[in-house]
Amino acid sequence: MLMNNMNNARPTAAVILIGNEMLSGRTDDLNLNYIAKQLIDVGIDLCEARVIRDIEGEIIKAVNELRAKYDHIFTTGGIGPTHDDITSESIAKAFGVEQVQDEEITRRLTEHYTGKQKELNASRLRMAMIPEGATLIDNKVSSAPGFKMENVYVMAGFPEIMRSMFASLKPDLTGGPKLLSRSITTNISEGEIADYLFTIQEKYPDIEIGSYPFIKNNRFCVSVVIRGDDEKSLTALEETITEMMQTKGGDILAE
Amino acid sequence: MLMNNMNNARPTAAVILIGNEMLSGRTDDLNLNYIAKQLIDVGIDLCEARVIRDIEGEIIKAVNELRAKYDHIFTTGGIGPTHDDITSESIAKAFGVEQVQDEEITRRLTEHYTGKQKELNASRLRMAMIPEGATLIDNKVSSAPGFKMENVYVMAGFPEIMRSMFASLKPDLTGGPKLLSRSITTNISEGEIADYLFTIQEKYPDIEIGSYPFIKNNRFCVSVVIRGDDEKSLTALEETITEMMQTKGGDILAE
Repeated sequence: MLMNNMNNARPTAAVILIGNEMLSGRTDDLNLNYIAKQLIDVGIDLCEARVIRDIEGEIIKAVNELRAKYDHIFTTGGIGPTHDDITSESIAKAFGVEQVQDEEITRRLTEHYTGKQKELNASRLRMAMIPEGATLIDNKVSSAPGFKMENVYVMAGFPEIMRSMFASLKPDLTGGPKLLSRSITTNISEGEIADYLFTIQEKYPDIEIGSYPFIKNNRFCVSVVIRGDDEKSLTALEETITEMMQTKGGDILAE
Repeated sequence: MLMNNMNNARPTAAVILIGNEMLSGRTDDLNLNYIAKQLIDVGIDLCEARVIRDIEGEIIKAVNELRAKYDHIFTTGGIGPTHDDITSESIAKAFGVEQVQDEEITRRLTEHYTGKQKELNASRLRMAMIPEGATLIDNKVSSAPGFKMENVYVMAGFPEIMRSMFASLKPDLTGGPKLLSRSITTNISEGEIADYLFTIQEKYPDIEIGSYPFIKNNRFCVSVVIRGDDEKSLTALEETITEMMQTKGGDILAE
């Protein structure tokens, strides 16, 4: 968990996971964690994520609220060929533009389905419909691309395809200084070091100190994660925390 | 994914996952899927989930926005002993009440730590602070309870503890008629059956038809999930979809 003064030199982002299957418990989302790690790598602060249903009004509301608040929005889900894939038309409405049949997507889909047993039927052609003014995000897995509309990146929910799309858009993202992090893990319980962490957090206001308990061999353990922009302070704090854990009788563990 | 007219006899809910670790990619959330399945079982419609940071203003905003919109709110995370656990005080502020030290929690914590090498230090005593007027949610794993404040259930983020808390609060939840569902899986690709699903959805407006593609043995497959309140219509639609898949040359697979 996090507490304070992060460097605001980094752009901000939110993720919108679209699909009722995550809210019915049918599907466990695999995309948020992947995108989160990618954004850390780029130097963008992921500030919020939402999981919403495939309902036009809810997609429009979430997209419009979040695109006004954060620098980048990444959506997953709802851009396939079936009747329940309504993300593209909802994004068009969120931006107040028409959906248009994109020539380049049509060309790619035609090429993809030519000579196959599968045909480019009406439903599949829906994947060529994108909001007017959107640009394409390549998909090397199944040819139908995602798209970017202003600061909103619209990707598939299918994890392999989402990852291919993220790889395509990643070079366009400009991040700030990459947030540095260290993790120190010990086999004593969180409550034993909590008083100390209060004190030390006050001394290092520019470093985010997170405390994450877990159980190993029936024993409560804790990882303290420190994150910040300055390598030297991080190293100093890492040494201080390590020493404190040892003083309290803990062994330092590989996490 | 989902499309339309669900029965609104069921209460609604939202989940708020609190903790920067899910947004930094450090931790993959394990709680949403569990809560989603539990709510299906009770007959409550989970409509939305948010992942937010441990920032007071963001917790207050999300809680107040969502508790006004849905019947039940479930939060996870941020109620442990460390400095970054600020959910309880944020919830108190969201409701405009004071945080108070609860006698019963203090008693439980005192009992829990008596005779152990661990002591009930100042940080651990923070877990006895709850918003005035809140009632307790038992925790059989580590004694410090969660709490309920009006329609907001506040639970730990640690999955084992969250599950124990959910088990404690579950008997108090009153759901509507349980949503019934069937899943039909075949080894043809989603695009082959998409045209058909458009037509059939129109004929069954009271049934939610979701289409979920996946890859098995390098081949695109699809599960169609149908959900609704009426067993008879579900069975009829299940048979119709099964027959359609077979007509298109697909084998019906165990999912």
